[in-house]
Amino acid sequence: MAHCAIIGAGVIGAGWAARLVLNGFDVVVHDPHPESERRTREVVDNATRAQARLTSAPPGPQGALRFAGSVAEAVRGADFIQESAPEREDLKRALLREIDAHAPPGALVCSSTSGLLPSRLQTEMQHPGRFVVGHPFNPVYLLPLVELCGGDRTQPETIARARDFYTAIGMKPLHVRKEIDGFIADRLLEALWREALWLVHDDVATVAEIDDAIRFGAGLRWSFMGTFLVYRLAGGEDGMRHFMAQFGPALKLPWTKLMDVPELTTAFIDKIADQSDAQAGAVSLRAYEQKRDDCLVAILQALKTQDFGAGQVLAAHEKRLFDRAPAAPAPDPSRPLRLHEGKVLPDWIDYNNHMTESRYLHVFGDATDALLRHLGVDAAYLAAGFSYFTVETHIMHLRELAGQEPFHTTTQILDADDKRLHLFHRLHHGRTGEVVATAEQMLLHVDTRHHRASPARPEIADRVRAARNAHSGLARPENAGRSIGIRQAA
Amino acid sequence: MAHCAIIGAGVIGAGWAARLVLNGFDVVVHDPHPESERRTREVVDNATRAQARLTSAPPGPQGALRFAGSVAEAVRGADFIQESAPEREDLKRALLREIDAHAPPGALVCSSTSGLLPSRLQTEMQHPGRFVVGHPFNPVYLLPLVELCGGDRTQPETIARARDFYTAIGMKPLHVRKEIDGFIADRLLEALWREALWLVHDDVATVAEIDDAIRFGAGLRWSFMGTFLVYRLAGGEDGMRHFMAQFGPALKLPWTKLMDVPELTTAFIDKIADQSDAQAGAVSLRAYEQKRDDCLVAILQALKTQDFGAGQVLAAHEKRLFDRAPAAPAPDPSRPLRLHEGKVLPDWIDYNNHMTESRYLHVFGDATDALLRHLGVDAAYLAAGFSYFTVETHIMHLRELAGQEPFHTTTQILDADDKRLHLFHRLHHGRTGEVVATAEQMLLHVDTRHHRASPARPEIADRVRAARNAHSGLARPENAGRSIGIRQAA
Repeated sequence: MAHCAIIGAGVIGAGWAARLVLNGFDVVVHDPHPESERRTREVVDNATRAQARLTSAPPGPQGALRFAGSVAEAVRGADFIQESAPEREDLKRALLREIDAHAPPGALVCSSTSGLLPSRLQTEMQHPGRFVVGHPFNPVYLLPLVELCGGDRTQPETIARARDFYTAIGMKPLHVRKEIDGFIADRLLEALWREALWLVHDDVATVAEIDDAIRFGAGLRWSFMGTFLVYRLAGGEDGMRHFMAQFGPALKLPWTKLMDVPELTTAFIDKIADQSDAQAGAVSLRAYEQKRDDCLVAILQALKTQDFGAGQVLAAHEKRLFDRAPAAPAPDPSRPLRLHEGKVLPDWIDYNNHMTESRYLHVFGDATDALLRHLGVDAAYLAAGFSYFTVETHIMHLRELAGQEPFHTTTQILDADDKRLHLFHRLHHGRTGEVVATAEQMLLHVDTRHHRASPARPEIADRVRAARNAHSGLARPENAGRSIGIRQAA
Repeated sequence: MAHCAIIGAGVIGAGWAARLVLNGFDVVVHDPHPESERRTREVVDNATRAQARLTSAPPGPQGALRFAGSVAEAVRGADFIQESAPEREDLKRALLREIDAHAPPGALVCSSTSGLLPSRLQTEMQHPGRFVVGHPFNPVYLLPLVELCGGDRTQPETIARARDFYTAIGMKPLHVRKEIDGFIADRLLEALWREALWLVHDDVATVAEIDDAIRFGAGLRWSFMGTFLVYRLAGGEDGMRHFMAQFGPALKLPWTKLMDVPELTTAFIDKIADQSDAQAGAVSLRAYEQKRDDCLVAILQALKTQDFGAGQVLAAHEKRLFDRAPAAPAPDPSRPLRLHEGKVLPDWIDYNNHMTESRYLHVFGDATDALLRHLGVDAAYLAAGFSYFTVETHIMHLRELAGQEPFHTTTQILDADDKRLHLFHRLHHGRTGEVVATAEQMLLHVDTRHHRASPARPEIADRVRAARNAHSGLARPENAGRSIGIRQAA
């Protein structure tokens, strides 16, 4: 699939456009709002910024973003169409009929509805079998969840195709097997939201206090374990049955007001809007959106280090991005080896936006790892109980690298014997090629089971020797073999 | 306050005990359960493990943990008492009467109730003025939220005292100003929980699917922004009023079942417990608790880097811990200077549980920063446009450091002139003193506004000279001035 159409580009539709172009798909957007192009481009900019912070996996080229004046023009030639119009059944039914009439026969047609029934939305479509709800969460370009819900006339392969497509763009599809108003997630959100509205309505708490009641407590748990697993743990050693016995009786207590919904009078809406303004203070929407995205990025990365929850989805998507990146051409063995590249990540910088000192050694360590893989030191070799350890490193700092700047390394083998490997890395600015730092390193081959130096096994020793010989004609770097000292007053 | 009593040591009471002893308070626990001592000690062990991962701020000495055979014995001499008995009003009323009868007059008496009314709980107390609800969230030793709610007879200063005390142990008190069943947080949790029970009851989704619907979507947002601020952002440029206009009508749709509560029949409880068992798989409770704690630690640390939400609470508590740590004695200027210490943090280690290569430079960089502060290079000096930059570093690795191991550094000044500072750091194992790595460094004084080397200002140059002279009699380290190379076959 290469061409996507977005019908309706509010916060959700623009978020879809962003996720799709960041994943390399060409996107055509249609929305009658006069400012939809500007707004969509601003969301894509925010998403690009967030994506750059989220992962160092190779993103591949961004897709193109176009705007169309009509539904028919937008869906022409599209393989995947996502409808994200306002939450009104009549409007969505009419739009889906129009999309269906103009879309190519093989196109998948999805709706972002938060809770309208797909069986009703597909009523007026000529080809309802290819329709399925794909309900995302804001910001669409960062949150992985998408609920899939088919209607009576949705074909099973449509759900399978949608699941594959959403997975390929880094999402976590959840199949809502039983068609129900509000699906699964929004039923939970609505329940909490209705209760929150009552608390404001009855002056029990302000909107800021309610947010605090969530984000300093249960919200932290909800971000990785949900509700049931958390309660299971709260049951202690006796588990879920004990929890139900312990807290079941509280369900009979009047701990929610959810019998009803407060009337949305003008006065009540003013009250909520005024409290919300007070909570937001003078901080702009865009600034809050970036803060939200930065927090989400930090949490997703944190959960990736724990190999849990949304962190697992991110890790799987990164693997996909790495796998599909074109293989680097084999480097010329007679030149310093270019084996590692990257960019300066957000948590690598100091308050001056310069890469911090220790990250230089981090990057040189990655370059050493890349060289070792190049020389055949792979997972099997490590598992067999052999490795190279760094025993000595001499770094020279020549220039600064700023946040988000690309870099690559080149590595010259100065010398080697059966146990030792003497390297000289250069860290280059990714665009100018300028050398920003160098690192001379001595590595020692070790038998990790017996914790002692040992000769490399023959298959590795041969490759090390060949690599050393290939570099024997290179000029010795000026700073190699250097010792530190004040030689004369400057 | 130095002596705390915990009455009731289930999951919540044991969590309180853990938070309190980790903050240096002596704690006496009473719980009639025959295994309460073992269980409490296990929770304290988990909490100690989590705390070590959470922060490198100096924890100070842990408080003592004792177990008492009766309420009277537990509360004798206590300054702070936290009741965490099962959620039954009759039981809690009787316990609070007993606590009140035996506690010293100045003691603060708090209840962990999730939603029972404090005015009713304090009914039988002789001194109801000193009673307040302090409702925490599991795990109590990691989640910052504690809801404060006073009853009709609670004195205002009791609420102020409780707020100060909970803040001092790293929590975020939220004052529930209007006494209401379920307070604020549990009303929200109960609403979501009742809806979730219906979804399981009606076979719309399993407990695992419901957890996924939360943790891959809205749960990620709830962990730092709550509900209202998130919805404000969903309203886009038009804000909260637009969001209410857009999504208000959906409140009229049947998107929740919250008119009623499913009957907790044996069959229904079996269904939930069976699904929960299937979700949990073969992983033990303790393993899940540690995974939960690790995820919370990672998220709290991630939010600290964003200076937002619960990350701000953590940062404030760390500052408190640093401020109250005893000042280090001034080092002997004629010896290598011991100015920095720490321990190997969880994200510093590789798959072998060894400190990764780049963290050695990280630690040496921190040692250099400590030396510069010692020499008078402070925030004002940096703000004036002067600094020292590292231009060259030579690291030698001698031994490994494992995760959680303590370390300290000593720094010898080898040479200095008006622009340059030539250092030799040793990284020592914190317990044995053994040198595990060394780093020789050359620093250059720079004028950061003009991006060029410059002489240090006189007040700094004088201190640098004095420090150099104080070290002039020290033996030169064996590895100083060393260059890297293969000198002969090993």
